[in-house]
Amino acid sequence: MMRRSVVLRRRPSGEPRPEDFQIAEDAIPSPGAGEVLVRTRFLSIDPYMRGRLSDRASYATPVQVGEVMTGEGAGEVVASGDPNFTPGDLVVGSRGWQSHSISPAAALTKVAPHGAPLQAYLGVLGMPGTTAYSGMTDIGRAKAGETVVISAASGAVGSVAGQIAKRAGARVVGVAGGPDKCLWVQETLRFDECVDHRSGNLHGDLADACPKGIDVYFENVGGEVQAAVIPLLNPFSRMVMCGMVAQYNEAQFPAGPNLGFIVGKRVHIEGLIVSDKPERFAEWRALAGPWVADGSLRYHETVIDGLENAPSALALLLRGGNFGKMLVRVAD
Amino acid sequence: MMRRSVVLRRRPSGEPRPEDFQIAEDAIPSPGAGEVLVRTRFLSIDPYMRGRLSDRASYATPVQVGEVMTGEGAGEVVASGDPNFTPGDLVVGSRGWQSHSISPAAALTKVAPHGAPLQAYLGVLGMPGTTAYSGMTDIGRAKAGETVVISAASGAVGSVAGQIAKRAGARVVGVAGGPDKCLWVQETLRFDECVDHRSGNLHGDLADACPKGIDVYFENVGGEVQAAVIPLLNPFSRMVMCGMVAQYNEAQFPAGPNLGFIVGKRVHIEGLIVSDKPERFAEWRALAGPWVADGSLRYHETVIDGLENAPSALALLLRGGNFGKMLVRVAD
Repeated sequence: MMRRSVVLRRRPSGEPRPEDFQIAEDAIPSPGAGEVLVRTRFLSIDPYMRGRLSDRASYATPVQVGEVMTGEGAGEVVASGDPNFTPGDLVVGSRGWQSHSISPAAALTKVAPHGAPLQAYLGVLGMPGTTAYSGMTDIGRAKAGETVVISAASGAVGSVAGQIAKRAGARVVGVAGGPDKCLWVQETLRFDECVDHRSGNLHGDLADACPKGIDVYFENVGGEVQAAVIPLLNPFSRMVMCGMVAQYNEAQFPAGPNLGFIVGKRVHIEGLIVSDKPERFAEWRALAGPWVADGSLRYHETVIDGLENAPSALALLLRGGNFGKMLVRVAD
Repeated sequence: MMRRSVVLRRRPSGEPRPEDFQIAEDAIPSPGAGEVLVRTRFLSIDPYMRGRLSDRASYATPVQVGEVMTGEGAGEVVASGDPNFTPGDLVVGSRGWQSHSISPAAALTKVAPHGAPLQAYLGVLGMPGTTAYSGMTDIGRAKAGETVVISAASGAVGSVAGQIAKRAGARVVGVAGGPDKCLWVQETLRFDECVDHRSGNLHGDLADACPKGIDVYFENVGGEVQAAVIPLLNPFSRMVMCGMVAQYNEAQFPAGPNLGFIVGKRVHIEGLIVSDKPERFAEWRALAGPWVADGSLRYHETVIDGLENAPSALALLLRGGNFGKMLVRVAD
C-alpha cells in the first residue's frame, strides 16, 4: 500500500481548479522518535487555504509548487514513536492533504472515542469553533440586548459565533446565501433573523433586520455584505475581522470603505487568527463539548468523498457552495 | 458695549469662506443662577469644526444656519451667578465664537493664574493634548522599541502624541507638511525622524524612516499618508483613529483601503472622541502641567488676531497653513 498526497502543481489564477493539483504516491513513512504516523479519515477544508496557494504576502508561508497542500486532518494513529500515542488512538491536528501523515506528537490532540464524532474536532469543536469563540470573546464582546450581525452565518465559524452571541442574550442577525441556508440559520441555529445576500435588496433587508443598528459585526466575507453593514454600525460598535472570503479568488483586492466612520462612531476593528492564542482551543473544547453532547450547539457539515476531490471541495467552499463545515472524507 | 458673535450664514461648500459667516451684535447678557459670563480672550480652532458646519450625520449635532458657531474658548469671568466663580477668574470651557458667552458653571474649569499661559489650556493642556493622551494611552499603547508614526506631527494633537510615545521609549516618526514643520518636529519635539508628505516620495521616504515597520499609527489626516502607512503596519499594530482632516472639506469621501490587512496582520483599529472619557482631561492636566512648566513638553501656537478672523483661521487650519495649535485672540 502506498501513501497518496495532493501536491500543488501550479498556482491557481482565480478559483482553484483540479488541474492546479496532482496526486503523488510514495511509500508510507515510518515515524521517528517523537513522531506519530496518522491515517487520515477527514480533512478540514477552510477559506484561509486560498491564501496559502498564492504567493501574495500573508501571515503564513505559502505552499510552494511541488509541495503537499497544507491543511488540518483527523484520523487514527497507525504507528507511534512517542509514548503518549498508541495505534488505534483517534487524533486531530495532523497536517497535509495526504492519506497518511507524519506529525510531531506535540501537534496532535487525542480525541475521546465516545465523545463527539471525530470530524466535529475539525469544525464545531476545532479551529472554526475556536475562531468563533476567540473572536466573540476577545473582540466582539456581545452583550444582552445588543444587535450582532454574522456574515457567512451558516458556515463553520459563523454558525458558532452567532450561537455564542445568542447565549449572551444578544439579538443575532445572520447573513447567508440563499433561502435554504437562511431557513436553517433561523430554524435550527435560532438566530433572530437571517438576510439572504442574494435577494437583490441586501442593504434594505439588512437595515430592516437591524432597526436598532449594529453593535457587533463578525466579518467572514467582506465585499457587499461589509459595505451594507458599515452604515448601520452604532457608536462604540465592534467589527471582528475574521476573514473576507468573497475576495480570496481575486488577483487584486477592491478598494474598501473610507475609514472616517471609525472616528465618528468610535468603532473598534480588530483582526484575529486563531493560532495566536493556542490556549483558546482547549478552553473552547471544554466549554462547548457538553453543548455538542446535549445537542444545544448546532452545526452542519458538507462531506465530499475522496482525497482526490479536496481541490474541488476547496473551490466549492470559496464560492459558497458548502453548507456548514466543509470536510473531505479520506477513509472510513 | 455690545457683544459680537460669529454666526453661520450658510453652509460652506468645500473650504469654509468668510462669506459663509457674518458678525452679529447684541447686548451683553447677564448670567442666571448657576451661570457665568466669560469675556473671551482666546478661541480654539480645531479640525472637528468642519464637521459642525456640514449637515452630514456625525457624532455631534451640526451648527444650524443663523446660530453662533461653536467652539471652545478661554477667558475671564466678568459676572457670575455661581458661588464658585468670581469676576477676574481665568477659565477655560466657555463655548461659541463670541466676545462674551454665558456658560453653565459646571462646564468651566478655573485656571491657576501663575500656571501655564491661559491659551495652553486650549492646546497642549486642553482638548488636543488630552486627545493625544487618551488615544495613546487607551489605543496606541506604544512600548519601548516600537515604531510609532504620527501624522500632522507638528499639530496640536500630533505634537503631544509623539512626545508621549517618546517618553514611553518608542522610536517616533512624524509626518508633516513642508521642511519648516519637519525641522521643528525633529529639532524641538525630538522625534527620531520626520517625513515631509509634500516631498513627492512619501511612500519611499516613510518606508526608509520605518525600517522595522510600524507598530502604532496615530491618524490625524487620512488620505495619502494613511495609504502610505498601511502597507508598513506590523502584525498586532494599532491604528489610533483621531481624525482625517485631509478630507474634511470634501463633499464625497473617497474610497479607503481594502480591509483584508486587518485580518492578516491582526491590526487593532479604534476611533476616539475625547469627550467620551471626560475624566482624562484632569488626569492629563495633572500629568502634563509639570512638563509644560519645566519646558520638557514642547508646543507651538499660531495666533490670529480678531474674532472676525475666526472663519479664515479655520480655513487656514484645514489646509495645513497653521503651525501647531491654531488660536484666535479675541481680547487681551
